[in-house]
Amino acid sequence: MALKRIGKQTIKLQMPPVITAYAAVGGKMEAQGPLANSFDFLSEDSYFGAKSWESAESSMLRKCFDIAVSKAGIEAASIDYIFSGDLLNQCVGSEFAVKDSGIPLFGLYGACSTMAESLSLAAMAIDGGFAEKVCAMTSSHFCSAERQFRMPLAYGGQRTPTAQWTATAAGALILGCEGSNLYVTNITTGKIIDAGICDAANMGSAMAHSALETILTHLSETGRDPMYYDMIVTGDLGSVGHDILLDLAFENGYDLSSVCTDCGMMIFDSEKQDVHAGGSGCGCSAAVLAGYLLPRLKNGELKRILFAATGALMSPTTSMQGQSILGICHAVSIEAEKPC
Amino acid sequence: MALKRIGKQTIKLQMPPVITAYAAVGGKMEAQGPLANSFDFLSEDSYFGAKSWESAESSMLRKCFDIAVSKAGIEAASIDYIFSGDLLNQCVGSEFAVKDSGIPLFGLYGACSTMAESLSLAAMAIDGGFAEKVCAMTSSHFCSAERQFRMPLAYGGQRTPTAQWTATAAGALILGCEGSNLYVTNITTGKIIDAGICDAANMGSAMAHSALETILTHLSETGRDPMYYDMIVTGDLGSVGHDILLDLAFENGYDLSSVCTDCGMMIFDSEKQDVHAGGSGCGCSAAVLAGYLLPRLKNGELKRILFAATGALMSPTTSMQGQSILGICHAVSIEAEKPC
Repeated sequence: MALKRIGKQTIKLQMPPVITAYAAVGGKMEAQGPLANSFDFLSEDSYFGAKSWESAESSMLRKCFDIAVSKAGIEAASIDYIFSGDLLNQCVGSEFAVKDSGIPLFGLYGACSTMAESLSLAAMAIDGGFAEKVCAMTSSHFCSAERQFRMPLAYGGQRTPTAQWTATAAGALILGCEGSNLYVTNITTGKIIDAGICDAANMGSAMAHSALETILTHLSETGRDPMYYDMIVTGDLGSVGHDILLDLAFENGYDLSSVCTDCGMMIFDSEKQDVHAGGSGCGCSAAVLAGYLLPRLKNGELKRILFAATGALMSPTTSMQGQSILGICHAVSIEAEKPC
Repeated sequence: MALKRIGKQTIKLQMPPVITAYAAVGGKMEAQGPLANSFDFLSEDSYFGAKSWESAESSMLRKCFDIAVSKAGIEAASIDYIFSGDLLNQCVGSEFAVKDSGIPLFGLYGACSTMAESLSLAAMAIDGGFAEKVCAMTSSHFCSAERQFRMPLAYGGQRTPTAQWTATAAGALILGCEGSNLYVTNITTGKIIDAGICDAANMGSAMAHSALETILTHLSETGRDPMYYDMIVTGDLGSVGHDILLDLAFENGYDLSSVCTDCGMMIFDSEKQDVHAGGSGCGCSAAVLAGYLLPRLKNGELKRILFAATGALMSPTTSMQGQSILGICHAVSIEAEKPC
């Protein structure tokens, strides 16, 4: 077994990389939500100064990257790699965001699991000795996502109770070898899970089994009890998927009800905001991590979290062909104290 | 600077991972081309037994993965990670191909640069001590790509002289720590280059500047002369992009004419096959690498190659919005002798 591997899906980082800076950017709906104060920047303009929804997403992500770099107190040019991806076809959100940066890019696609995927690979790049400073980031935009995956906005389609609202948000993390108390300690990489769900308005159900598989594998391979963590935070199952996850975990002998929460349930107030089952989109878990969770780890309110971002790998093409929506979940342990 | 980093974009692997097995699968056009004998499997059925072009691509990639695993003489379950991506929206080609494997997946998007991206990250996962066996792979299918990026096939659109023909092909590599003389020694990761090209039928022009940037950076950061390599092989500029690359390199003081070739020019016979400027698609460079180049490194015909896969990050959406087609090129040195 490889040096740092402690299980089939889990690795333990030898010299745990640290998250030295983080930034979250959001849009109008996010500004009306319960985590509004967590964002570094909120735009009243859904176009973020651009002329199309796709360019708006790039503009938002670039803004987020710039803020993270500024908060890290470094020059962008000193970053060795960017790991980024997004929901848009060909990942144009990320590509246009970084095109003028001159920084080597690894483009990723993991649907809403992308923040955990980019964080995993960024941490591995540092722990592997390949880089000293790495950026992991992702974004999503309600308007670019809706028209690509479901209906043009102008159509005014009715949304079902299980539907989630794609967050217009971005999160960017700068990782390094030292200079912070936020350690990336373990990574559990997900495999594809086919729960047989074909409904593009029920992503939570499509992803809940993936979350279960990765979280239980993580606990088993690390030998940890769920209560090792102050918070196991999925992103983004929404309330429907979250309830399914708790039920499935209970059937498997784990009561996660007191420790498990979900970024999609945190970013919006489903009572007051018309978001149905909650938030979704790569940017949702990215912004909740960068804006809300990491500052609480930094200031001691939280000691250890398991960030388990879930992706519904939904293709309108294969869905129309009758195929199910595949799910994946990647989990990353972030701890506020260097482990022994 | 990080331990293994020898330049802004280039790393040197400390314990160079080896490529222990490789497989190439192709379709009908590939079977009529000059490299037909290089493929492990050629299908007369463009559907590869499936019912849609997208499922056909997954079926082809799964076949290629199975052959590579079989040639490696290992159990698929012993593979620690798969790094894969493809041209299809949401990378469904890769996801459905591996969905029953139970192997942790990192999904990638790098357009036609994906084989070099997956190979880079797979080698880093091993050299970083995170894995012992990793699969790097990718695919493309003419029919799934044409209707997604350009026209439905049934429309019978005329193709311009600069157009390239997306190969129906897949390539899969198994990497390990030992057991082969095919060493991955250096990786130069590309950054986004915007050459200002907006024509989806002229990908070679969109990518040539990216190839130039990555190849010259690689030579500069490794301190190597182009003739250090038996072959610098881009994938896939086609004849139009290849000529531009040679011209640009010459302007920059490098004569690459005797050492540089292109997978898109190798896979088809542009005199006899109606492919215009040559082949393209993730699967083109992947299959040429796995089917043609690696066996020649293995048997001593070649000693060292620089595999420089180029991607045109073309989005029909942003192209219709008037944006240019961004390019990226990742380069990987593969050497048949362990470097000192």
